[in-house]
Amino acid sequence: MTHKVLLLPGDGIGPEIAAQAARLLKACQEAGLDIEVEEGLVGGSAYDVHGEPLPAETLEKAKAASAILLGAVGGPKWDKIEDLSKRPEKGLLGLRKNLGLFGNLRPAMLYPQLASASSLKPELVAGLDIMIVRELTGGIYFGQPRGIEVRNGERVGFNTYIYSESEIERIGRVAFEMAQKRGKKLCSVDKANVLEVTILWREVMERLAPEYPDVELSHMYVDNAAMQLVRAPKQFDVVVTGNMFGDILSDAAAMLTGSIGMLPSASLNESGQGMYEPCHGSAPDIAGQNVANPLAMMLSVAMMLRYSLNENAMAERIEAAVGSVLDDGLRTADIASEGMQTIGTDAMGDAVLAA
Amino acid sequence: MTHKVLLLPGDGIGPEIAAQAARLLKACQEAGLDIEVEEGLVGGSAYDVHGEPLPAETLEKAKAASAILLGAVGGPKWDKIEDLSKRPEKGLLGLRKNLGLFGNLRPAMLYPQLASASSLKPELVAGLDIMIVRELTGGIYFGQPRGIEVRNGERVGFNTYIYSESEIERIGRVAFEMAQKRGKKLCSVDKANVLEVTILWREVMERLAPEYPDVELSHMYVDNAAMQLVRAPKQFDVVVTGNMFGDILSDAAAMLTGSIGMLPSASLNESGQGMYEPCHGSAPDIAGQNVANPLAMMLSVAMMLRYSLNENAMAERIEAAVGSVLDDGLRTADIASEGMQTIGTDAMGDAVLAA
Ligand SMILES: CC(C)[C@H](C(=O)O)[C@@H](O)C(=O)O
Ligand SMILES: CC(C)[C@H](C(=O)O)[C@@H](O)C(=O)O
Repeated sequence: MTHKVLLLPGDGIGPEIAAQAARLLKACQEAGLDIEVEEGLVGGSAYDVHGEPLPAETLEKAKAASAILLGAVGGPKWDKIEDLSKRPEKGLLGLRKNLGLFGNLRPAMLYPQLASASSLKPELVAGLDIMIVRELTGGIYFGQPRGIEVRNGERVGFNTYIYSESEIERIGRVAFEMAQKRGKKLCSVDKANVLEVTILWREVMERLAPEYPDVELSHMYVDNAAMQLVRAPKQFDVVVTGNMFGDILSDAAAMLTGSIGMLPSASLNESGQGMYEPCHGSAPDIAGQNVANPLAMMLSVAMMLRYSLNENAMAERIEAAVGSVLDDGLRTADIASEGMQTIGTDAMGDAVLAA
Repeated sequence: MTHKVLLLPGDGIGPEIAAQAARLLKACQEAGLDIEVEEGLVGGSAYDVHGEPLPAETLEKAKAASAILLGAVGGPKWDKIEDLSKRPEKGLLGLRKNLGLFGNLRPAMLYPQLASASSLKPELVAGLDIMIVRELTGGIYFGQPRGIEVRNGERVGFNTYIYSESEIERIGRVAFEMAQKRGKKLCSVDKANVLEVTILWREVMERLAPEYPDVELSHMYVDNAAMQLVRAPKQFDVVVTGNMFGDILSDAAAMLTGSIGMLPSASLNESGQGMYEPCHGSAPDIAGQNVANPLAMMLSVAMMLRYSLNENAMAERIEAAVGSVLDDGLRTADIASEGMQTIGTDAMGDAVLAA
């Protein structure tokens, strides 16, 4: 069966890095991968053409695809759009919600070749390999009621942080299974000393634990987790948490590696359909200059091959190619260091393809 | 006028470090400070005696005091209390709310003598001096409705993240004024690309800005702020944010220094009454062993002298004494390093008093 892959370049550096992913997909096809690649608009670039960040056409294509590759969305150009529902970010959030992509996998691992890029002392991060499992279609991102309205003569803004047992159980199972495949340690992050919604979260995680007797479950308050990530990140294996805490902690964890330009992510739904994107943003300040690092995007292709297309061997070939390019001393500007050769986006794409 | 100071030792290492603060207060009295010191129960230790974490008697004493010094609350002993309203943390939250202590000042500064304690590379943290201004009596900590209930046949947990314009304005002014006294840079942290409540937050900060023309206001999304704290913390001067984001970011910032045992905090209300406490927690694992670091607690006394009692000279004497003790190579276990002398809680108290 021919798999459909939808490529959504998005905004900022999105198109540049997506171009490298497109070349990589072509190379995979030549190596025998049976896929059909389509493109679509999302985010600010979709707003500019269609007046909305997630045009119906894009959503239809996304629903029909086995997997979606997304560059990045957003930028100052669209920050002034008054109507929040038209902002680029809503394109991304709409895709997540409409496709039910509740399981967000964000690895934070340090390539040995890039150990010095971390802002932490090398001994604290050498060999770092954390997997953050973030709930992506619930929590305060989507909770109702929400808005800004006048109460008692002044405006108030409000959002609702809400999770049901079944939502928590669903992401909990993803995390426990992930821990089983990895180091068998799962840390659930909440704020159960203050927030009722996370008391329920903790309770459900506890209830699931006996079904995964080989996994060691622990709980940590979110403020402490933020500290522990800075203090001793290697204590973590798999971390599971809600949408908002996951947003914050996964970015902090990614930055610990010093090379967020290297990190892919996957967002999966119940039927294994997935959206794959770099952990980094659209970096509008360097867009169009051929300096962006395309490796997170190319590694997102590898993640897609593994999780949605079941093509482990090809995924490994891509990951190995990235490793050997780093071994060769090639670096984009964001991970440049003394004695290494700094190259542009295209040249990095060339190097990976050659390898 | 005789100022009343209420000392609330709390739980875990609280009593040990509070004992050192009590000695310091006595020394201040001998040096001419006109204060009257009372003690009270809060947290788990209050629950054990009175069945509640904030007994009426303690609240009355707190209301009558010019300033409160709190050790720390909480511990595994009380984690199993089913009724959230009886947990030790509620003692702390109740004091904050009942006294209207909305303005939480959390400095994250690195003592030059302790530069090597940070998990970050020395050049990234040398001279670090950030002030996090956290809103402390609103946001999702106190928002209604909240709870766990059955909807559509399953349980859901929910909390409400809510701020009114006047609440935002009030903490905004504290932060702008703080920036005026410091480096004149204020970074407001929100998630205005997703949450309506923080769109209002950003709008109010923007509205206040022209009244403080000497302060440069910037905005940052919370996920990016967590990254930037890890990547390049010295870019920040004053940071202002809501209760939940402030909880997370202030702990991460404190941990950047590697010596959270050194950091005091202040929580102020509109009339300048304040509660002062270390940034660290109750550390039940080391309680009762005379190894806890009392310096954050002793520096909290200095902060109290400065902000609530207007005794700047005496505050500076305490801060200088702490500096000279560090210069002398004395360290508690949490900040111990090679070539330095590791001493206990009491001995550290002795050393500061002597200095
Ligand atoms: C762009 C934004 C809406 C998004 C989020 O907050 O989820 C991003 O930060 C992410 O983590 O993918
Ligand atoms: C103990 C807890 C309720 C408290 C909070 O979350 O505010 C603590 O983490 C703090 O930051 O003072």
